[in-house]
Order: sequence, then structure tokens, then C-alpha cells
Amino acid sequence: MSENQTAILRIHCPDQRGIVARVTDFIHQNNGNVVALDQYTNREEKRFFMRVEWEMDGFTLDRDEIETVFGPLLAKPLDMVWDLKFSDKIPRMGIFVSRSSHCLYDLLARYEAGELKVEIPVIISNHKEMEHVAGQFNIPFYHVPVNKDNKKEQELQELKVLQEHKVDFIVLARYMQILSSDFVRNFPNKVINIHHSFLPAFAGAKPYHAAHSRGVKIIGATSHYVTSDLDAGPIIDQDITRISHHDSVESLVQKGKDIEKIVLSRAVKAHLDRKTLVYKNKTVVFA
Amino acid sequence: MSENQTAILRIHCPDQRGIVARVTDFIHQNNGNVVALDQYTNREEKRFFMRVEWEMDGFTLDRDEIETVFGPLLAKPLDMVWDLKFSDKIPRMGIFVSRSSHCLYDLLARYEAGELKVEIPVIISNHKEMEHVAGQFNIPFYHVPVNKDNKKEQELQELKVLQEHKVDFIVLARYMQILSSDFVRNFPNKVINIHHSFLPAFAGAKPYHAAHSRGVKIIGATSHYVTSDLDAGPIIDQDITRISHHDSVESLVQKGKDIEKIVLSRAVKAHLDRKTLVYKNKTVVFA
Amino acid sequence: MSENQTAILRIHCPDQRGIVARVTDFIHQNNGNVVALDQYTNREEKRFFMRVEWEMDGFTLDRDEIETVFGPLLAKPLDMVWDLKFSDKIPRMGIFVSRSSHCLYDLLARYEAGELKVEIPVIISNHKEMEHVAGQFNIPFYHVPVNKDNKKEQELQELKVLQEHKVDFIVLARYMQILSSDFVRNFPNKVINIHHSFLPAFAGAKPYHAAHSRGVKIIGATSHYVTSDLDAGPIIDQDITRISHHDSVESLVQKGKDIEKIVLSRAVKAHLDRKTLVYKNKTVVFA
Amino acid sequence: MSENQTAILRIHCPDQRGIVARVTDFIHQNNGNVVALDQYTNREEKRFFMRVEWEMDGFTLDRDEIETVFGPLLAKPLDMVWDLKFSDKIPRMGIFVSRSSHCLYDLLARYEAGELKVEIPVIISNHKEMEHVAGQFNIPFYHVPVNKDNKKEQELQELKVLQEHKVDFIVLARYMQILSSDFVRNFPNKVINIHHSFLPAFAGAKPYHAAHSRGVKIIGATSHYVTSDLDAGPIIDQDITRISHHDSVESLVQKGKDIEKIVLSRAVKAHLDRKTLVYKNKTVVFA
Repeated sequence: MSENQTAILRIHCPDQRGIVARVTDFIHQNNGNVVALDQYTNREEKRFFMRVEWEMDGFTLDRDEIETVFGPLLAKPLDMVWDLKFSDKIPRMGIFVSRSSHCLYDLLARYEAGELKVEIPVIISNHKEMEHVAGQFNIPFYHVPVNKDNKKEQELQELKVLQEHKVDFIVLARYMQILSSDFVRNFPNKVINIHHSFLPAFAGAKPYHAAHSRGVKIIGATSHYVTSDLDAGPIIDQDITRISHHDSVESLVQKGKDIEKIVLSRAVKAHLDRKTLVYKNKTVVFA
Repeated sequence: MSENQTAILRIHCPDQRGIVARVTDFIHQNNGNVVALDQYTNREEKRFFMRVEWEMDGFTLDRDEIETVFGPLLAKPLDMVWDLKFSDKIPRMGIFVSRSSHCLYDLLARYEAGELKVEIPVIISNHKEMEHVAGQFNIPFYHVPVNKDNKKEQELQELKVLQEHKVDFIVLARYMQILSSDFVRNFPNKVINIHHSFLPAFAGAKPYHAAHSRGVKIIGATSHYVTSDLDAGPIIDQDITRISHHDSVESLVQKGKDIEKIVLSRAVKAHLDRKTLVYKNKTVVFA
Repeated sequence: MSENQTAILRIHCPDQRGIVARVTDFIHQNNGNVVALDQYTNREEKRFFMRVEWEMDGFTLDRDEIETVFGPLLAKPLDMVWDLKFSDKIPRMGIFVSRSSHCLYDLLARYEAGELKVEIPVIISNHKEMEHVAGQFNIPFYHVPVNKDNKKEQELQELKVLQEHKVDFIVLARYMQILSSDFVRNFPNKVINIHHSFLPAFAGAKPYHAAHSRGVKIIGATSHYVTSDLDAGPIIDQDITRISHHDSVESLVQKGKDIEKIVLSRAVKAHLDRKTLVYKNKTVVFA
Repeated sequence: MSENQTAILRIHCPDQRGIVARVTDFIHQNNGNVVALDQYTNREEKRFFMRVEWEMDGFTLDRDEIETVFGPLLAKPLDMVWDLKFSDKIPRMGIFVSRSSHCLYDLLARYEAGELKVEIPVIISNHKEMEHVAGQFNIPFYHVPVNKDNKKEQELQELKVLQEHKVDFIVLARYMQILSSDFVRNFPNKVINIHHSFLPAFAGAKPYHAAHSRGVKIIGATSHYVTSDLDAGPIIDQDITRISHHDSVESLVQKGKDIEKIVLSRAVKAHLDRKTLVYKNKTVVFA
């Protein structure tokens, strides 16, 4: 095992005394060196959240043993919801896209530059326009046109493709189709969307038209996990840019693209670094 | 007349060829020196907007004559909506406030420092908490408690006070009462409100609670002209600040105050500089 | 002791295994309930930083005992630099100001509103202009004019005033005099300055003139602890605002004021919440 | 000539009465419809700046005639520095790049999407790493390795390539070589650089190391026209992002990339839209 491999533990549980002490003591007793720790207590909900990362080099428990030991020792007694990941497990990300290239190019350029610790085995689209972009980066492209009548069977087709490519999570890089609840259920907190507005303002279709019509002075973009409730899933990141009366809908769309791609990539990065934790439709994003 | 006095002309009219040429030629022919000019054409609405400011020193028309000449010569034929102000006319601003002091102190501190070209003859409140602040700055304070039953008569009382103090426009510095349509009708595009959210998200009461509940990653504040439609008037300025899961409702309120007072003061300054122009529920804010 | 009293422990020490475990275990063993914990390891410097806050209610050690026990048990063996504060100890803040009122009013308005957990026993100025503001808030004001020739004795006079008023730390709310190294030595990491530029750009005098002359498109303000090295002390917070070619030096000064006061107050708040920790001329600001 | 073709006139000259009137009257008399006009007077320099754009459809002067008429009629008597462009003339942009792909991919993705009205006939690099990116977009790539000893002849080689490809202006998309004054002289205000700091802070090499070492809380990027004075040319645009003590030099580099590419593309867009005007080492960026 290389020196740099780390274990990442994310937990949440009812707040009570001594959680940090007990978890860090568990790591310390097994000779783990903590490289990052962030915790947060939600006082209203009386709920405790924590992410801790330690080096596996020199750790006295094997990967499999950690779960076996940690479960009965701490997770069970403290009533934890938890998961454990290892930094050398590279997640496999499926990209869904429609006709706009800006988010797709942004993700692929980062991928190519080694900026994202991820594999991208497949790109799926309901249109053909982005096929050449997939080709530029030698990534398999599947054209799965969807309409009201064929959505059910086409989503089954998509699930099959995702399964074949062993996709762990999905990024909707401006995919302009609503995924069914059935589909989303297969990827709980594992579908990341970029919505082209400052949610909850302007949910739904044509947010830049709505923003222009309302005369706002700032527009935004919102990245969130997809739930069965449209544009209402737990928010991961948001950002904005200043506009003025000079801006037409077209220039809003243009300026918005710059925020969309940056916000989406930040959300993807947080997800890849296992820094997100969803609880009651909100996302804790650890430092 | 001092050298620094300027005339400020704001117009909007159907778009057509030669408007800038004709307006600036009018100023030039009368020996006016333009010190600022900003114009904008709304292509969708086919509407032209302009603000031009010139020095009155050496201008060959008297103040009264300008209107007499400009009206038939240009405003009428070009079907303009227009107004004309002079920089030495200092507007009189009435402040409405409830219990929060941050916007009030911010405005009064700017006033005291000579930062705002304005007179503040009166502060009106539905509560008594801010009376001592008015006292610190020697500004008359009127306590006008309002409830559902007495709103009509109390607003009449307020109008009387405003009239007595020759108030030109009103700033709601976190005034937590809804003004009636009847009241607002007296001050068209002359009541500036600060709403403690990034409108149109979280209109109405308790926006910080709503923002917290939705789990947004950014909060904002919006300054707008008050219309009879609650929190839906033409937006003058907005700004935001980044938050995180660490923030409670209380800390949102606290962080929000800093945006509220800055955004409100920017809107007041734009209004005082006659840089705003409202058309179809949107605000053009000239450079 | 009221239920809400907390102890705040800040430490930094050479990085090594098990620090979090040992510190949190110490708190847990003595029946403390952690309400906030933030830690950070500087990998390059191999240095560990931590802030932990726990409720004193039910804690089995008295305030005095904590130091007696924690020192030999953990601080000494782990070679810690550390301090311990209690949330009910309200710090006493002396304000230095020259002629500009914006930061002073901002701090006093927050103080008056109960937003800052602080006492403000004294305001010192090298000018008389702000005396009336001190008067508005009933705070003792000392006029201590300083020039090159009398600086040494006048600073001794200032130190005497600060001592008499039991001042814990100093805020320079746009104080336009350079404090001597001798003076600063009395308040290590306890003098907070606001510099009206985005440091390290435009250190020294007249930063807005310099910014205007360079043609930057953004200006900023920087709050930092004062050291004997002018404008080079550890930065606590910074912020910026967008400008354009339209801005004159005067409008930069005006726009800058809005950033200055907000950044200064955020730095003061971080200091009051004992969230800052200085190491090697940088400031760790805990969440 | 298609209906959408416009003429764009940029001028600056000593400030005097009636410039706007005379210029817009010239356009109006020749039946031009102004679609955008922005002007600005620098009071200190007593200098007037203006950009005006009008539709060529129906304009009574031919393209060639405009210069012939406008020169003696207005430009000469008002002592103007001016240029005239037509919207259907698509500029040809040469890209210089070294080893980082983020700005290159960002520009090429926008180019591919039709977001930039530009031709990109050539990419030049002192390294070979970006050759495959040029290949992905089918753009000729020239590898011109430069060192201290061969700079003079290699720059001549570059000039030859640029000439062959009829390049109008150059974008340095993270090109880590200093261009000689001789080279720059061939492209006055036609070489756009992105510097990876908030200039004038951290000019020169390794700005992220310097930012990290200074402990700043915000980092930035600056796009500017290149002059013979390193990192001191007229600034076109800047932007920033917030950082914290958690950030290592590596994470600053990473976060910086996102600002660099956005700021660079905004500057390129302003240049392409002929919205920039340089005077005395500052850039006026018209609305």
C-alpha cells in the first residue's frame, strides 16, 4: 500500500458527549495518523456530523477489519449513519448532457488534466450534438433519445449502460430531461445536477428568461443532488454574477454558463473528495 | 449660480433614429457642457432610455425655460416620458424603521459624514426602540404604532407628518409593516425598501428562516421600489454573502445585516444621484 | 454558573499522532460537552492547530484547575503553545481613530445593538473631529495629538489611558498614525488594523490614489494584526469590490469605506470569538 | 450587406463641448441607427472617450467613405485618436500556451461553441504538451522552444508564423515566457495576457507561492495588455476567489485556474467586441 492512501469516514448521529474523543481515540489506538478532521453539530436537530481522514500506512487494522471493528464498537452504540471510503478507490462518473457543451468541455478538460480523481467511462445524451466532443476525448457516447412516451424504457436502457460501465455516480452536465423518480431511486445522493438559477429562485424551465423578466441585478447557478422533487434536492454549491439592465436573455445565458460550469465542477470535486453528507435535504460540505 | 450646479435630464421614449443627436444638440446649442451621459436601448421593448447631466454655468436657458423649450421641441415630438432635476435641489428623505438599528445607523452615519446629499427631516416608527438613535442625531422621531385595525388612520397620520416635513421620498430601513396600496400611491417609485433576501427567492416574512430551511449556500438582500405588490417592485440593487451549514438562523440574520445596510445605502445613493429610471417594473440604473 | 458558559482552548504544536484524541478525551473524561471543534494541520510546517470549545456546565474541573491539570498532562508533553478563555469574560476594546467616522460608527452601532460581545471603555484620537461621536455613545474620548517630535511621550500617555481603562486589545478604526514598535510590543497580536487596500498591493499611504493610478478593476480592504513591520502583519480578513474607469479617487474612497467597515468588523468579531491564532505571521481563522 | 452589420467607432480626444452632439449628429445625418453608445470623460486628464456603434443598413456612406468624411469633418478639428471597425470583420487570434491546459481548453471550447466571434488559425507553444489539444480542435500547432540564447531568432520565427496566418492579435493562455520588447512592439495593445495574481500584488514568477507565504485570504487573476514593462500593462479585467488557511500552494493553483480562465475569456470577449480603449496605461472598458 502506498504511503498516501487514506481512509475517509463520514458519520452522522444523535449528538451526545464524547463522540469526537471516541472516534479519534479509535483511530489513534490503531496507530492511524489523522490528516483531516471536520465536525459540526446541528444544535436545532441535536445531530452530530463528522468527516475524518487518516493515513492507512501503519494503521493496524486491514480495510475489511475497520468495518468489522468500528461497527459494533462505535457505530452501533452511538446510533451512527456512516460510510467508509478509501482514497485509492477512484469513482466512476457517468455524464448526461443535452445540447450545451460548456459544462461537458469543462469537466472533460479537468479530467484530461488530471484535476479530478475520477474515471469517466461513458457519456449519455438525448441528442447527438455532443457526440463529437465525446469523440475528442475518446469516451463512449450513447445516444438515448427520450420523450414522454418512451421515457420508461429509455431509462431502463440508460440504467443498463450505466451498469455495464460500472458507473458509481452521475453528473447532469446541462441535461434537459427530468429523470423519473424510479430512475433517481437507483442513485440516492449520487446524481449531481447544475441548475441555471440561484435556487430556490427560478426553479423549473427557462430561468434566465424569468430572471430577465423580473429584472434581477444578480444571476446564479446551483448545484444539487437530484431527488424526486424537481430542483428541490439538497444544495451542494451556488455562485452568482452581477448583471445589469444592459443584459438581454442571450447575454444572461452566456454569463450564466461561466457560473454553471464552475459551480458544477466544485460540486463534483466535493463529491469526489467525499466531503459531502446529506441529511434532511441539506448538504453538509466539510472543509 | 455656482459653477458646479448641473441639470439632470432623464428620459425614456419609443426607440427611433437620432434621439441622442437631437438631445445632445439641444444642450450643445444652448452652450451646455455635458458631464455625464448614459443611454441604453431595450431592443425587445423598442424603448430608449437616457440620462444626461450638464453644467448650468454658461447655459443660455434659465431653469424654467428649459422645460418650456424642451417640451415642445423634443419631448412632445419624440413621445418622451421625462423629468428634469437640478443638482442643488437637495431631496428630503423620510426614514421608516421598526426595531432593528443597523440600516438606520448606517444611513445616519453617512448623513452625518456628508456622504449622502440629502436632508433627513423625520424618522417614523411603529415602535419606540429607535427613538434614542433619532435623538443621538437630533432628528424628530414620530411613534406611530400600526395594527390591522388602525392602519388606515395611522397611515393618514404618517402622511400628514411626511407632508409637514416636506418629505420627497421614503426609505424603509427595515420597517416591518406592509404599507397599503393607498399609501404607496402617494409616493410612486419614491419608497425604497430593503428586503432581507435575494428576491425573488424568499419573498414575504422570515426569509432567513426559509433560507436556512432550504439549505442554500448563499444569502442575499434586495433593495427595490415599493409597489402595491409585496416584495415584487422594481429591483434597484442586490448583493449576497456566502454561508455554510455552520450558520444558524441567528448567524444568517447577523451576516444578512451587513449586506442589507450596504445594499440599501447603494440604492439610496443611486436614487439621490437621479440615476434610476423605472419602466415596466424594472429599474434602469445608469452608470 | 450559567448553562451557556463555555471554555475555549486554542493550541498549536508540532504535528504528531493522536492530538485530537488526547485533547477531546481530556474534555470527555471531565464530562465536558464539546460545542465546537476545528483543527487544521499545516503539512509543510508540520504544525497542528486546534480550537475547541466546551460547556462548563457539568464540567468536573474548576476554571483554575483546568490550567493546572491540562499543562502537565498534555500541553507540556506535546510541546503546545496554548491559551484558555471563558466565554463570560467580556474583552475590553480600545478604539483609536483619526478623522474618518465610518469604521467608528459601524463598530459603535454594533456595540449598541449588542452584536459584539465587548466593552468599549475608551476612544483615543490624534484629532478632535470624532469627539462628538464618542459623545453620542457616552464613551470617554481622549485627544492625544501625535507628531514626529512628541510620539514617544504621547504613546506613553496613550498606554497610561489604556491601562487605566483596563483595555485588553486595540482596534485602529482608520487611525492614520504609525504606532511605534515599542508601543506595539505591549499588545502582541492585540492591535487590529484596517488597511484600505487589498494587501500586499498598495501598502503604505494613499492606497486609493495608487489603485486609481494603476487602473485596477477591483479594490479591497485588509484587516490584520499590527506588527512592527508596517502593513505587513498577519492578515485576518480581506474583501473587495468591483470598480471601473468611471471611478475617480473620490469614488474609490467612498466605495472603499463600505468594504473597510465590514472587513474590520468581521476581524473584530473573529478576535472576540477567539477564533484567530497567529503563527509565523499568518492567521488561522477557525470556523 | 446583411441587416445586422454595424460600424464601431472608438475615439478619445481632449474634452470640449459638443463632442457627443457632433458625432451623433454625423451618424444621424447619414441615416445611421445607433445601437450602442457609451462615453466617459476623465475630468483629471480633461480627456473624452467614446464608443458608438450603428447599423450600416441604410447608412448613406460607404465603409470607405466614412473614414474620408469623418477625418476632416470631426476627427481632425477635435484632435481625435480614433479607429473604425465593422462587425463582420472577424479578427484572427493567435494563442500562445506553455504546459497548462485550462485556459487553452476554455478558449477552444468557447470557439467551438460559437461563443467567440473569432478565428483561431494557430497555436504556438514553447513546449509540446499542448499539441494534442490543438489536434483535438484541428488547429495548426507550432512548437517553438525558447531559451535565453535563442529568444531573438525564435521570436522572429514566431512573427513569421503569425504573419503567415494573418493573426490580428495574440492571447497568452498561460504562456510562461517573457516576450521581448521588440516582439511586443509589433502588437501594440494586441497581446492579452492572464497573470495568475491580483495585480499589482505578486507580479512576476510564482505568485501563488507568494500569496501563500503572505497569508492572504483572497487570491485573484488579472488580464491585461502586454507592454514592455512586465506585468504592468493596462488592466482589462480582474477577479478573485476567497481562500483560507486550509489552502496549500497546490490548492491555490487549482482554485486560481478557475479564475484565470474566466477572467481571460472576459478580456478576450471585451477585446473582440471592440469595447476596450487604452490611454496612458489604463483600459477603458465600455458597457
